[in-house]
Amino acid sequence: MSTNPAPLLEEPRAIVTAGLSLFDEALAAQAVPVTAVQWQPPASGSEAALAAIAADARTPDANAEAVRRLTSARANWVDVARAGDVLELGRGEFLHAGPPIEWKDASGPLRGALLGAMVYERLAATVDDAERIAARGGITLAPCHSRRAVGPMAGVISASMPVVVLSEEEFGGAAYATLNEGLGKVLRYGAYDAEVIERLRWLEHVLAPLLRQAVRRHGPVDLTSMIAQALQMGDEAHNRNRAGTSLLVREIVADLVEVDAPTSDIASAIRFINSNDHFFLNFSMPAGKAAADAARDIAGSTMVVAIARNGTEFGVQTSGTGDAWFTAPSPMVNGLYLAGFGPEDANPDIGDSTITETVGLGGFAMAAAPAIARFVGGEAADALRHTLSMYEITLAEHPTYQIPVLGFRGTPTGIDVTLVARSGVVPIVNTGIAGRLAGVGQVGAGLVDPPMSVFVDAVNALGRNAPAGS
Amino acid sequence: MSTNPAPLLEEPRAIVTAGLSLFDEALAAQAVPVTAVQWQPPASGSEAALAAIAADARTPDANAEAVRRLTSARANWVDVARAGDVLELGRGEFLHAGPPIEWKDASGPLRGALLGAMVYERLAATVDDAERIAARGGITLAPCHSRRAVGPMAGVISASMPVVVLSEEEFGGAAYATLNEGLGKVLRYGAYDAEVIERLRWLEHVLAPLLRQAVRRHGPVDLTSMIAQALQMGDEAHNRNRAGTSLLVREIVADLVEVDAPTSDIASAIRFINSNDHFFLNFSMPAGKAAADAARDIAGSTMVVAIARNGTEFGVQTSGTGDAWFTAPSPMVNGLYLAGFGPEDANPDIGDSTITETVGLGGFAMAAAPAIARFVGGEAADALRHTLSMYEITLAEHPTYQIPVLGFRGTPTGIDVTLVARSGVVPIVNTGIAGRLAGVGQVGAGLVDPPMSVFVDAVNALGRNAPAGS
Repeated sequence: MSTNPAPLLEEPRAIVTAGLSLFDEALAAQAVPVTAVQWQPPASGSEAALAAIAADARTPDANAEAVRRLTSARANWVDVARAGDVLELGRGEFLHAGPPIEWKDASGPLRGALLGAMVYERLAATVDDAERIAARGGITLAPCHSRRAVGPMAGVISASMPVVVLSEEEFGGAAYATLNEGLGKVLRYGAYDAEVIERLRWLEHVLAPLLRQAVRRHGPVDLTSMIAQALQMGDEAHNRNRAGTSLLVREIVADLVEVDAPTSDIASAIRFINSNDHFFLNFSMPAGKAAADAARDIAGSTMVVAIARNGTEFGVQTSGTGDAWFTAPSPMVNGLYLAGFGPEDANPDIGDSTITETVGLGGFAMAAAPAIARFVGGEAADALRHTLSMYEITLAEHPTYQIPVLGFRGTPTGIDVTLVARSGVVPIVNTGIAGRLAGVGQVGAGLVDPPMSVFVDAVNALGRNAPAGS
Repeated sequence: MSTNPAPLLEEPRAIVTAGLSLFDEALAAQAVPVTAVQWQPPASGSEAALAAIAADARTPDANAEAVRRLTSARANWVDVARAGDVLELGRGEFLHAGPPIEWKDASGPLRGALLGAMVYERLAATVDDAERIAARGGITLAPCHSRRAVGPMAGVISASMPVVVLSEEEFGGAAYATLNEGLGKVLRYGAYDAEVIERLRWLEHVLAPLLRQAVRRHGPVDLTSMIAQALQMGDEAHNRNRAGTSLLVREIVADLVEVDAPTSDIASAIRFINSNDHFFLNFSMPAGKAAADAARDIAGSTMVVAIARNGTEFGVQTSGTGDAWFTAPSPMVNGLYLAGFGPEDANPDIGDSTITETVGLGGFAMAAAPAIARFVGGEAADALRHTLSMYEITLAEHPTYQIPVLGFRGTPTGIDVTLVARSGVVPIVNTGIAGRLAGVGQVGAGLVDPPMSVFVDAVNALGRNAPAGS
């Protein structure tokens, strides 16, 4: 096969327009073939800061180092501990998902989870008592992210809760998360009835001691490598963790069997884990946290190191801006609802699970998990499209997290807030939807459009940090 | 966007050639754009039979019924039994992979496996003794396929070996396979040293009783559904069974824990299964056998119900031709070799594992398992190409076995020998490579080009069966 060389200017072989749709629409109306390329100016208000950052000689090296740390971190599951012992959490203190928030501003699911946790901690006998105590300032709140922890949905962690302990080998870090409670009415979605509290006690008194003994017998479980395998098995490690859960069970179960405990407890522990394909989420999330934390506090870096929502506000942090949160009202999730629920039942976006997107998983790895596209209301081809669009706003392709269908290309990793502001493309997030009222639980799952303003605010803060006159 | 309507005959927008490359090469040499379409006449010798079959009024309904049976069969793992008890196997009788064969014609790996099985059955004290007994006609051979069984590679089954028992619900069938022995030096690749025999005894005395009790406690394990899930997790159920193995462990392990047996035995059983991602192959193969057997013996059907190789001959059976095997010398496998081995060490293609391709799995489902393309010496895009090409020679898209990356399209299922003969496209098979000498074991993995003549012979037999003058 061959093609004729096309003589230049003989006829217009193709017309390409960029930006305003006025141009391509006018040509199309005249029956002229035209290809429209999307382009838009940088997000309004970010121009000066983008120029200052572009002139900052530190940025390229800072981002290269941030990427190196983010992508070479290795997370190992090494233990199960009491949260109070490892997270500096006292009685009456609670961690939560997302940026900092006060009780008075908390949304329904976060309030529900806090009330449930207060009853679980026996700070109150009933949810009503708990509400009175919380309202008069009787509890102290801090973001999970401020204590090396992450929590799905409401993300509430209290002192007595067991947490998985991850050790990060390359840079000497650590990360923590609670054990996943399963589906349906669970604390993380703001449910707090007796069944929820009873399950929390079973996690503390039965499951946690078994897993602690099993992982200590086993030795460190390489979660980075397990996530890489799961991506080759249809997971994206945020909304789909079926492979991860299966691989984790397979890895640990022989040691679990050898733990000194009643067989009936071991069998119930296995059945509990097996009944919930999201069990691995509470391992993939802290694995992400360990990697993102390794990339923090690099002066001049424009890379995102946390995306998190508390149900009221959506926030991001970048490597170059320390502990500052850039926030905006948390958006609603566009997606599919469980039977009996609709958009009117939904809470705004909530949870630390966006730590997965922060490290090149979740929505960024959707091409590896076409089933998720259906789950959040799309087609297999959408999954591919979502992943491909994220290469536009990321600094690297992950060397370990690869997507088979893209010829084992690394996932788009390391979100650069300047690329977000310049392109107008925001990170794709796929997530669960919590009911807006305390006590309801999950009502659906879908995709979120993060607010552009948080990235613009981050760009502006980075611009202010750029050396004057550089 | 729009395109100009192209006035007819204004200029040749495209030239398409079919068949002989002479045409397109001549045009290309004159710098004329040309698209060459592959086409070739039916395989030589099949023309008259193809015409007779095309004129046979029974064929469309017969094939529709064959497809219905093949794709609606449901295989459940229900038990573990002694082969002698369920497969009418006496002392000195052995089943093997592929079409019927005599000892004198057996290749190295089949001989090795038979000798090992004779020692295991204590028919001979040493391999040398066993060889003398076999050479003087002291053993009886029959294909696994003739007893509702299938065996990977040499596929040898003897009376004392444990077999998994599958029940087929829709059409009341059953299927059997041995337990997978693991990797490296194993009987199925023709190895027979003391370690191999000892492992066979452990399978019989430790693993089999545990799995028997576990599956009886659990109740039927729906393998059809598990295979469907595994296809969404990067397996193709022939050369990649990591997801299937993980899902099987996860499904059965809580019941395994509750079996009345020493904890150390249960833990070793779990570790043995977990050490071998091919463990599930010996479940996916009989699941395929159960489905293919459900579609047997439909007069006028041109659908393949078995593809199998004994290491000397490659054979196929069709639904419309009963127990007849159409055979040709088994081809060599094109692929990658393990360290220290090369093509000169390889045996011709061997094993019943092509039952997976027969039911729309394995090579036919490679698009679901891009990792396999690498394993057999290709790229991710090759996996997609292989699957797409199989729609040309199959009667249906499997309603249960779906490929996420193809928008959950069903796998190409139900090979029609007339389509193979007409198109010149042979089924794609990906497989392991056995060493040619008895006792060596696996030396590589790759792709096989089945001999066209077996499909032509099947077409001719079907043509002879077609009603005269119809």
